[in-house]
Amino acid sequence: MQTTQFELLSEHACFGGVQRFYKHFSSEIGLPMRFGVFLPPSAAQGPVPAVVFLAGLTCTEETFAFKAGAQRVAAALGLALITPDTSPRGAGLVGEADHWDFGVGAGFYLDATQSPWSGHWCMESYLVHELLPHIAQDLPVDAARMGISGHSMGGHGALTLAQRHPGVFKTLSALAPICAPSQCPWGKKAFTGYFGQDESLWSAHDASALMAAQTSAPYPGGILVDQGLADKFLEEQLHPHLLEAACAKVGQPLTLRRHAGYDHGYYFISTFMEDHLRHHAQGLNVQRFVKQD
Amino acid sequence: MQTTQFELLSEHACFGGVQRFYKHFSSEIGLPMRFGVFLPPSAAQGPVPAVVFLAGLTCTEETFAFKAGAQRVAAALGLALITPDTSPRGAGLVGEADHWDFGVGAGFYLDATQSPWSGHWCMESYLVHELLPHIAQDLPVDAARMGISGHSMGGHGALTLAQRHPGVFKTLSALAPICAPSQCPWGKKAFTGYFGQDESLWSAHDASALMAAQTSAPYPGGILVDQGLADKFLEEQLHPHLLEAACAKVGQPLTLRRHAGYDHGYYFISTFMEDHLRHHAQGLNVQRFVKQD
Repeated sequence: MQTTQFELLSEHACFGGVQRFYKHFSSEIGLPMRFGVFLPPSAAQGPVPAVVFLAGLTCTEETFAFKAGAQRVAAALGLALITPDTSPRGAGLVGEADHWDFGVGAGFYLDATQSPWSGHWCMESYLVHELLPHIAQDLPVDAARMGISGHSMGGHGALTLAQRHPGVFKTLSALAPICAPSQCPWGKKAFTGYFGQDESLWSAHDASALMAAQTSAPYPGGILVDQGLADKFLEEQLHPHLLEAACAKVGQPLTLRRHAGYDHGYYFISTFMEDHLRHHAQGLNVQRFVKQD
Repeated sequence: MQTTQFELLSEHACFGGVQRFYKHFSSEIGLPMRFGVFLPPSAAQGPVPAVVFLAGLTCTEETFAFKAGAQRVAAALGLALITPDTSPRGAGLVGEADHWDFGVGAGFYLDATQSPWSGHWCMESYLVHELLPHIAQDLPVDAARMGISGHSMGGHGALTLAQRHPGVFKTLSALAPICAPSQCPWGKKAFTGYFGQDESLWSAHDASALMAAQTSAPYPGGILVDQGLADKFLEEQLHPHLLEAACAKVGQPLTLRRHAGYDHGYYFISTFMEDHLRHHAQGLNVQRFVKQD
């Protein structure tokens, strides 16, 4: 079955633009999928640059749109915001929703190779080869000016998809990303389940391993990463120092900001979201600025 | 049983301040209650003015904190944000959670007089006589500089509590408020259940009726109300024109803004929240301004 046309589920005026949620049948996933898109006021005049934001474990296409407070700045900067879901849903695999950190809500933005996940769990192909081209075709979004960001598992998704598809994503940032999934419990569980136990196959989806293997900086304009120091997952799961070391090794400019007192949630994300959108807007050559009153 | 000390459930750094959620036993309600409070960075230097935000049907103390994107401006203006829950919970009354617009999540910010609701459903006394004084005593919030706002049922709450307790609330605004509950299905259902069928007892909790009976403008500094014109509840439930007429009758300055395209939800609220917080900050004489970069 081919990709179906986007079915508009809801739309909401927001900061002069519009927040929409769509549903479509994904040929890559083999199931219906949902996503959100915020279009700034400037999208009425033609295609605008966009930031894809990948959410973390247990989240949906709505989480970022509800909680990040990003539409204000995106409206002012003329950026679209694209928020995919975090996994296939409704596949009906045995145990698919038994774990909050694996299966439903935990797709890890990769194409699984292990049965039974390989049948539907192919979020990387879905995003890069189906959803984003389809969005650029059907909505006023400029495929040539797309950046990517994400939180936690979605930060892992942003850092890996950006390195695996540098032609697709021109700018990159992340908040509290899983920087080295091969070396943390969340990542080991996911990679074992989705890729199998041969760890040599994991590095192609490990942001720090990918970076350490680069021959030159993939994002010479710099990567912005924010990390809260009161994040309860920092020590065991996130390992930003490994990304930092890998970037240093290959000369990849990285602004890694460590924030005392901030935790892993959306109060942290919302606080620093404006900086991320400005980082992307600058890299995507947006000639617009927030109106000051 | 007396009011117990606030038990801190969680706290989250946010825009340099802190978003907290507390639980305590309410002597007015006779049950444990929860609320949220955002303290801006300036609260570290001493008591700050505050805006109480009352949420709408089905919401909790978390909804506004999650979705309104208000902390950014509150931090910059030096305002605390106080978000109570929308009703008692856990009373165990038969049918208390059978309706999304009555009972649990639908306290209407009043003291019920009808059995069985009169036992616990006394949100007005809880807020005015217990929670807010207790907050001003235990947290760095200035009881003399408190404003009130709210959304939908919470807009009804703000407009009525502000008129019933003008000494408590110095500034007033509302978003998509139920302006004349005596004349709409939500309000008739709630008032019948909580106050009984004698409609003459309802006007003391009807914002437009209260206003029409004022002998002078209760808020000479003005009231700010925003209303979306794509709000599906506008025609049947909200009746802002009745508040407008009542304000005109008594000389109460009202800025009622009608926004084409905006609906009833938090995408609407977040879009106009900054204007509301600036309205309160101005009225509460806050000598602070948003930092411009």
